[in-house]
Amino acid sequence: MEELLAPFRQAVREQGDVVRKLREKGAPEQEVSKAAAELKSRKKTLEAKELALQPKEDTVDRVKMEDTLKRRFFYDQAFAIYGGVSGLYDFGPVGCALKNNILQVWRQHFIQEEQILEIDCTMLTPEPVLKTSGHVDKFADYMVKDAKTGECYRADHLLKAHLKKLMCEEKCSVGQVNELEDVITQMDNYAQQELADLFVKYNVKSPATGNDLTPPVSFNLMFQTSIGPGGNMPGYLRPETAQGMFLNFKRLLEFNQGKLPFAAAQIGNSFRNEISPRSGLIRVREFTMAEIEHFVDPNEKVHPKFSNVADLEIMLFSSQAQTSGQSAQMMRLGDAVEQGVINNSVLGYFIGRIYLYLIKVGLSKDKVRFRQHMENEMAHYACDCWDAESKTSYGWIEIVGCADRSCYDLSCHSRATKVPLVAEKMLKEPKTVNVIQFEPNKSAIGMAYKKDAKLALEYLAVCDDCYISDQEKLLSETGEFSFETDGKTFKLTKDMVSVKRFQKTLHVEEIIPNVIEPSFGIGRIMYSIYEHSFHIREGDEQRTYFSFPTIVAPYKCSILPLSQNQNFVPFIHQLAEAMTRNGVSYKVDDSSGSIGRRYARSDEIGVALGITIDFDTVNKTPHTATLRDRDSMRQIRAEITELPDIIQHLASDTLKWAEVESKYPVFEGQESSKKE
Amino acid sequence: MEELLAPFRQAVREQGDVVRKLREKGAPEQEVSKAAAELKSRKKTLEAKELALQPKEDTVDRVKMEDTLKRRFFYDQAFAIYGGVSGLYDFGPVGCALKNNILQVWRQHFIQEEQILEIDCTMLTPEPVLKTSGHVDKFADYMVKDAKTGECYRADHLLKAHLKKLMCEEKCSVGQVNELEDVITQMDNYAQQELADLFVKYNVKSPATGNDLTPPVSFNLMFQTSIGPGGNMPGYLRPETAQGMFLNFKRLLEFNQGKLPFAAAQIGNSFRNEISPRSGLIRVREFTMAEIEHFVDPNEKVHPKFSNVADLEIMLFSSQAQTSGQSAQMMRLGDAVEQGVINNSVLGYFIGRIYLYLIKVGLSKDKVRFRQHMENEMAHYACDCWDAESKTSYGWIEIVGCADRSCYDLSCHSRATKVPLVAEKMLKEPKTVNVIQFEPNKSAIGMAYKKDAKLALEYLAVCDDCYISDQEKLLSETGEFSFETDGKTFKLTKDMVSVKRFQKTLHVEEIIPNVIEPSFGIGRIMYSIYEHSFHIREGDEQRTYFSFPTIVAPYKCSILPLSQNQNFVPFIHQLAEAMTRNGVSYKVDDSSGSIGRRYARSDEIGVALGITIDFDTVNKTPHTATLRDRDSMRQIRAEITELPDIIQHLASDTLKWAEVESKYPVFEGQESSKKE
Repeated sequence: MEELLAPFRQAVREQGDVVRKLREKGAPEQEVSKAAAELKSRKKTLEAKELALQPKEDTVDRVKMEDTLKRRFFYDQAFAIYGGVSGLYDFGPVGCALKNNILQVWRQHFIQEEQILEIDCTMLTPEPVLKTSGHVDKFADYMVKDAKTGECYRADHLLKAHLKKLMCEEKCSVGQVNELEDVITQMDNYAQQELADLFVKYNVKSPATGNDLTPPVSFNLMFQTSIGPGGNMPGYLRPETAQGMFLNFKRLLEFNQGKLPFAAAQIGNSFRNEISPRSGLIRVREFTMAEIEHFVDPNEKVHPKFSNVADLEIMLFSSQAQTSGQSAQMMRLGDAVEQGVINNSVLGYFIGRIYLYLIKVGLSKDKVRFRQHMENEMAHYACDCWDAESKTSYGWIEIVGCADRSCYDLSCHSRATKVPLVAEKMLKEPKTVNVIQFEPNKSAIGMAYKKDAKLALEYLAVCDDCYISDQEKLLSETGEFSFETDGKTFKLTKDMVSVKRFQKTLHVEEIIPNVIEPSFGIGRIMYSIYEHSFHIREGDEQRTYFSFPTIVAPYKCSILPLSQNQNFVPFIHQLAEAMTRNGVSYKVDDSSGSIGRRYARSDEIGVALGITIDFDTVNKTPHTATLRDRDSMRQIRAEITELPDIIQHLASDTLKWAEVESKYPVFEGQESSKKE
Repeated sequence: MEELLAPFRQAVREQGDVVRKLREKGAPEQEVSKAAAELKSRKKTLEAKELALQPKEDTVDRVKMEDTLKRRFFYDQAFAIYGGVSGLYDFGPVGCALKNNILQVWRQHFIQEEQILEIDCTMLTPEPVLKTSGHVDKFADYMVKDAKTGECYRADHLLKAHLKKLMCEEKCSVGQVNELEDVITQMDNYAQQELADLFVKYNVKSPATGNDLTPPVSFNLMFQTSIGPGGNMPGYLRPETAQGMFLNFKRLLEFNQGKLPFAAAQIGNSFRNEISPRSGLIRVREFTMAEIEHFVDPNEKVHPKFSNVADLEIMLFSSQAQTSGQSAQMMRLGDAVEQGVINNSVLGYFIGRIYLYLIKVGLSKDKVRFRQHMENEMAHYACDCWDAESKTSYGWIEIVGCADRSCYDLSCHSRATKVPLVAEKMLKEPKTVNVIQFEPNKSAIGMAYKKDAKLALEYLAVCDDCYISDQEKLLSETGEFSFETDGKTFKLTKDMVSVKRFQKTLHVEEIIPNVIEPSFGIGRIMYSIYEHSFHIREGDEQRTYFSFPTIVAPYKCSILPLSQNQNFVPFIHQLAEAMTRNGVSYKVDDSSGSIGRRYARSDEIGVALGITIDFDTVNKTPHTATLRDRDSMRQIRAEITELPDIIQHLASDTLKWAEVESKYPVFEGQESSKKE
């Protein structure tokens, strides 16, 4: 297998070297990003080969699985009786219970164990907030429309499909094929006009009708609405839950009695008006996220509990490995932080905790990896970013992002609102620090901007160090920099502003915290759990089951009377009441099917355990019943009164099935029958 | 007190009689509704008097309470650093934890105990669904705008305020006062043109500027957006969660193996674009609801578990009591159903369960009542409707609705989509039934509607009994009826359609289930809990606390070391770890304040219990610590290792504080000190 992959690894490594060298010699940005796009494309090819070569038994039967998910109403298309809306799904009882359990474990694992401050903000968001965050201007895809029918397509998807078709035509020469491949490789780098030119050059038409297409336009992916009756307050449905935590930073800091570090978290829905949603639960228009913002003093990016996760062996796919054509590698987390593969131990700690969470809720250890963003993938402000990825039939998909976003978000909102979003740190002894400040030439700015000059001066006074350094660089490279405040744009040149550096003695230090942001896509995690836990019983293609861990299983236990005999009813009630008292979810199936058929139905939706009430239950004292483990299908027999506690302990993961088997007699068959 | 109220009771009773008599003699609708509006107004006056006369100690200090809620970040205005948006609130750590706990108890109390099918549908909803439900056409308020500034006002609020001002003017004669009062009484009954005329007649101007106002227009209260990129699929944010359950009826029925009755439930956010939101959490633009739809065979509206709640004594405010000027009365639920005060035992069962839930999460028994809708308040399709109301400083506010909506919703969606939303019932023996059907005159309809006739015939074929009977009445009264299907409107007259009734022998019966709908406003319940549990410590105006039941308290326990002495740290960790294992939320406060001050802070946010680690903990074995009850401030002393289990049992309500006190020694003061 490695033999087959060698040339592809080689191709990646060569291109990785090209990119590195271009960066080292400071080549123009355009040239670098062109080379980086080619690198990305080669990486994709390598990964596709790797996946294609994997053993067949590792791949799930997606058609069979999706049939089960639909038939047993785990989830299904929303508004189906009205024709349905693509990208919108409803979760049925099983899917909803699984989702609730995944979130409940999330709360235990993060909020409770890490003492995180959970908050709950509105989804409706006024425009200025998302203007600051960059979503109004940049959260967009290019779209083209069928000039006659108005049908919309994502420009890049359509162009790519068209070029691939051209490449397959007989008249297409080798030179042309290379040219087309080149365009496809660069797809993510084209600006609007370049894309428009390519649509003309390759004469792309509407695939459904052959009609002309309108030129590509930028389509913002947020759902817009209007807040209040006046029509003068545009708003959006939030595209992520993070902003609410930045905006409440001061209240949260105060709640934490002014102390850093602390973390906030939010669970809730976000929205993305995809141009053409596809891939089931993976790309949808309304989805649940769970996000954490860990606020930390940038000078103290060390996590006190890192040693708890340092010994975990996790599959890491570092940026370096990616650019040199290597595979992801198992690595001890402690080593990764020590060797600088992971930027700091706070980020490392969260990577470890995320990993433990994913395994706890049912992902397979060998199908989870953490992939580091390469330099050109990362937002310019981020220090380091790792995605947890899960291996599915769609390839490796991102399910959790974990980024060190430095002070970017708080700084932006601070600049936009002029509200300082900082923490104060009492110094044990006074300290001399380096200060960096804008030094405005008031008269020059006054000359240029008249009565608006005041706005510019106010703005310059509240800027943070990161921002000032960035602008200083621009000032020295281009001689100017621009900014917008209160709806006015200012362009300042070298004669209007300079940057002053000096030293100052401080007793209290103001800190703009850095933010480590683990961000979970709950729908994608659920989908991964489905794929990783879907199984077919050996020797019976018709019987499938989901091996959900008991802690997240939608129902913990089925209660199945052997038949509809009325003598079983009191025992059903007794068990049901006890389980309710224990807070354990259960499902009674007293329909007329055979016990085997009803177990198959129970397994199909991943119920973890099953109790059968039979004639021995009724006829013998003490009254006993059987308890069955879904995965092994093995059964034990215990007293009715003991069962609810056994199940509660299995459900909270404080007891293992093996222990149950060692303590109670294995069940082979009942001794008495109806007649007794 | 009753003496003071007597004339007001008398006034209500008299008007109640007027309304009853008008109905009996079949007076015109307009006359009845005018009289009913007057009745409503007199009821309001009576209720205001009742509330004004209540003992002072029953009213909460709202200013003090809201100060605490804001200062300790239970909740606060959203987007405050951007100037805020009215009607949008963020929940901070304490409010969010309380909300999660209220919902968790809701899931246990309803979903788990009643074996309800919980689902989770999208908030984005395409227009046709809400067209069918009536929200697109009828979910609206009238609005006027300042002609120059564009500022918007709710027409009824503005007119009422203007008229009240006029009434206070000296030049206003007794005759004019009566006229103005009459207008105010009828406010809810005016149509758009009548309102417009009144604005002109009384020369109403913009209150802020004195500018002219635009005539009243209907403003739909749903947030509109556009789904997908084409701009041709208008959608809304759902105004309620109920529709998702109706649309998934068939899938849910199948999940329940085709059997009735069953219930579905949904917890989630809904949206309402209020013209001018006010009253804090009570009237907001984005809010969490929890709704149940209990689907039941209309011929079997009897709840098998009703006896479990029949003995509850609940304050009921029947329609009859309201129209005769009486107060709400304590009544045994069983009697209320038997005497027909409550329509059926399914509705009665839910009223009982709702009551138990509200008490469990912390509402005061004497501040909860169930008020029946009067005939003119109820939607025409509803059989009976009761609101759970809570007494607050805003008066009695609706917090849960509980309506028997008959077959209305399923019928509407069935007619609109032509998908039969019915359940099948196997008959034990074949049965002869009365059938009611439309009998279309195909040629007459064909003449009138040409090629669209087919649509009309399809529509007539799927209508249900309730609808056919309604139309039959119209047909006989007015000679025609209209309907819309597939965007076309049809008006059918007596010669085009008749209604046929005949008998048929059935083996399987098709049933359109009736729906009982308990609908919970979570924000309003939370607000009521705040008011009902806010207290000031006797003798200390500065110390306040929330007496939340332990089961919903935001944190179950505080952990307070006596000082910042390092010897306490291992015990903090030991307790924290054990509580995490037990799934019990806690909050460590190791700040430098005195222990009393830190207990006051803990009480202020309603933490149920507190552990103090002192020098006896460190110096003596076995290691012990004190446990304090928030409400009584009494303390006991127990071994450190026992405390987490005690707290877990208190938190899940399986142990009472009184039992703890009887088992462990009461704590008076520590014996050892730092020096030992």
